[in-house]
Amino acid sequence: MKLATVVVEGTTRAAVVEDDGVALLAFADVGDLLRAPGWRAHVEDALPGAPRLGSAGLRFAPVVLDPRKVLCVGHNYRAHIAEVGAEVPAAPTWFPKWADGLLAHGADLVLPAVSHQVDWEAELAVVVDADGGVAGYTVANDVSVRDYQKRTSQWLPGKAFDALTPLGPWMVTADAWEPAGQTIRCLLDGEVVQEGDPSDVVFDAAALLADVATFTRLRAGDVVLTGTPSGVGTARTPQRWLEPGQELVTEITGIGRLVNRVTRSNPSSLDQEETS
Amino acid sequence: MKLATVVVEGTTRAAVVEDDGVALLAFADVGDLLRAPGWRAHVEDALPGAPRLGSAGLRFAPVVLDPRKVLCVGHNYRAHIAEVGAEVPAAPTWFPKWADGLLAHGADLVLPAVSHQVDWEAELAVVVDADGGVAGYTVANDVSVRDYQKRTSQWLPGKAFDALTPLGPWMVTADAWEPAGQTIRCLLDGEVVQEGDPSDVVFDAAALLADVATFTRLRAGDVVLTGTPSGVGTARTPQRWLEPGQELVTEITGIGRLVNRVTRSNPSSLDQEETS
Repeated sequence: MKLATVVVEGTTRAAVVEDDGVALLAFADVGDLLRAPGWRAHVEDALPGAPRLGSAGLRFAPVVLDPRKVLCVGHNYRAHIAEVGAEVPAAPTWFPKWADGLLAHGADLVLPAVSHQVDWEAELAVVVDADGGVAGYTVANDVSVRDYQKRTSQWLPGKAFDALTPLGPWMVTADAWEPAGQTIRCLLDGEVVQEGDPSDVVFDAAALLADVATFTRLRAGDVVLTGTPSGVGTARTPQRWLEPGQELVTEITGIGRLVNRVTRSNPSSLDQEETS
Repeated sequence: MKLATVVVEGTTRAAVVEDDGVALLAFADVGDLLRAPGWRAHVEDALPGAPRLGSAGLRFAPVVLDPRKVLCVGHNYRAHIAEVGAEVPAAPTWFPKWADGLLAHGADLVLPAVSHQVDWEAELAVVVDADGGVAGYTVANDVSVRDYQKRTSQWLPGKAFDALTPLGPWMVTADAWEPAGQTIRCLLDGEVVQEGDPSDVVFDAAALLADVATFTRLRAGDVVLTGTPSGVGTARTPQRWLEPGQELVTEITGIGRLVNRVTRSNPSSLDQEETS
C-alpha cells in the first residue's frame, strides 16, 4: 500500500495512492494516521467509501508533516564511504534535521542565499511506526549545504536548513517493499549523478532503529534517513553543486520518483556582496 | 520576572515565581505563555488575582515542556576551549537535543545503562521569544554520554539521551539578567567542579541566535544551550564521571540553582555483561 499526504483545499489529508489518483482518509497527514491505533484496519474499512481525487493537478505535501524527530545517518553505503575516504564505521554516524527542513514533492527547492555549495544526497527514508519499527519506506534527498556542514566538526547547520529536504511523494508500507534488488538514483536534468544499491549498506533499517532506541524514543511518524550512495557533488573532481533551473529527481525502484525544481528566487545577500 | 512551569494536580501550569511560592497562570507551560501575543501584559493583568502555591512541596517541570528545537553549542567558553585543546572557532559548533531529553529540577537523573562515562556540563540556556530573540535565561546541564558522543565524528547520540538534560528551575526574563559579573558553577555533592564567567564566551546569546537564523527558524519556547565552562570530567586527569547517589547542582548567580540526584535505577545490561 502507498500512503501520501496531499494538499486539499488549503489543508492536508492523508491518502491512499491508487493507479489513477488518491483515496482521501480522515487524517491530516500520514503521521497522524500512523499514530492512530489500528490504522491499517481503519484504512481498509474507509477505502470503499473514501472520496477520490484524480491524478491531474494532485498536489503533495511531505509524507509526514511534523515529525518530532528526523534522524539521518552518514557513511552507510559502502560505495559512498569509499568516495569520501572514510572508514567503515562500527556505529551509525547520526545527525539531525527538523520538520521545518522537509520539502514536498513538486515544490521548488530554493537554494539558500548564504551558500553556493549545495549538494545532493539521494536517500531511502524510513517512516517509523508506533512500536518504533518500520511503518514504511519513502524517498528523500538529504540536500546538504557543504560549506555550512564543514564550518565546524558538527554537520548540523549544513544539514538542517529549512525547506531543503525533499521527502515523498509517498510511503510504501513495510510489507510491500524491501531493499534487495532495488536501485536508488539521483538525476540532474536527466543525468544520472548517483546510482546505488539500497542493500549495500553497513546498517540496514532494523539496525539503525535498534541503535536509536539505545538513546532516544522514536514515535509514529518520525523519520530516519538511511544514508546516500556514491556520486555526491562534493566528492567529484571538479566538485559540482546544484544550480538554479535544474530538475532534481530522486528515485528508488519500487517506491517512487521525487521531483523538485531548483531555484534561487531572490537576489541574495551573497550575490550582492560578490558584485559590490 | 521569573517564570517557571510547575506540576499541579497531575498536569502542568506556567507560573510566576515569587519570594514565597508561585502565582499560577492560565498556560500549560512557559512555552505556551511565550507563544501568546502580548504575554507580558497578560502576566501583569493576571498576577493580582492569580491563584498562589506556597514553596513547600512545589514541584517543577522543565521550564519549557515541548520545544520544537533545542540547539546546543560546543566550544564557546574560552577556558573550556583551552581544556579540550580545541581552537577558537570562527562559527558556533552546533549540535541538537530533543524535548524528550529535558529533565525537571528536582527529578532523578537516571544514568543510562549503556554507559559508565556520563559527564557534566553546566550551561546558561536561552529561551527564545516569538521574534527569535531572547525571552529569558535559565540554567541547564548538558549531561553528556562521552563514549556515545565519541563513537563517531558526530556528537548527537551522546548529547541527546532521553531525560538527561536538567533545565530550570525557572527562567529569568531578559530584562532582568545579563551575563557580565555573574558566575556559573557545577557542584557534585558540594564540591565545585566547574566555575566560570558566562561573559567569557566567543559567541554571546545574540550572536548565537543570529547564526541559527541563517539556516533555520526559531520559535517561542525553543531553547539554545550556550556552552560550558572548563572543569568537565572528561578533560580531567584522571577522568571523572557521574556516579549514582551524587547530588548534581548547576547554578548561575542571578538566575537560580538546579538540583538533581544522580541514580542508576535498574540493573543494567552493561553491568550484567561485565559480571557474566
